[in-house]
Amino acid sequence: MYGLIGRMRAIPGQRAALASILLEGTAAMPGCLTYVIAEDPADEDALWVTEVWDSAASHQGSLALPAVKDAIARGRPLIAGFDSRTETRPLGGHGLATA
Amino acid sequence: MYGLIGRMRAIPGQRAALASILLEGTAAMPGCLTYVIAEDPADEDALWVTEVWDSAASHQGSLALPAVKDAIARGRPLIAGFDSRTETRPLGGHGLATA
Repeated sequence: MYGLIGRMRAIPGQRAALASILLEGTAAMPGCLTYVIAEDPADEDALWVTEVWDSAASHQGSLALPAVKDAIARGRPLIAGFDSRTETRPLGGHGLATA
Repeated sequence: MYGLIGRMRAIPGQRAALASILLEGTAAMPGCLTYVIAEDPADEDALWVTEVWDSAASHQGSLALPAVKDAIARGRPLIAGFDSRTETRPLGGHGLATA
């Protein structure tokens, strides 16, 4: 499996709009086992995105999906920056949807 | 919802043993929507744990579960340290098991 943990900052006042764009665009992505968007309670502009995919290739392939491309295009103007991006190697756990 | 993103380091050579303890003890926890244990490919001793709960109370309650208490007791000697622990406020996403 392939995982990502990332923290991004929205332009002030745009976190909710950015989050809803991300939530809309990422509903049905082949190979995606979990994709969670969360607010950082300690920073009103920050969002955390944690992802698990059945493979890195599935993640890469998702970037070509129309809904994802649309979400990226609509979301990018609302993003002020990316604070961290960590690749992980998920071993297992609970709540991993079947691919 | 209540989320946690944490990075811990195992005692050198004990990451696999620690991960399997965590995976065993966290299989059935009321209110847990997702709980993923992942290796950090860039650090052979580091594990990432990403969690989403239906509430902070459910997370707190899980710490009293026999299986979790047992996992903590067996895992603690294999833990060298905790690098980061971030509380989040999950908004939604894919692969969140129903509580």
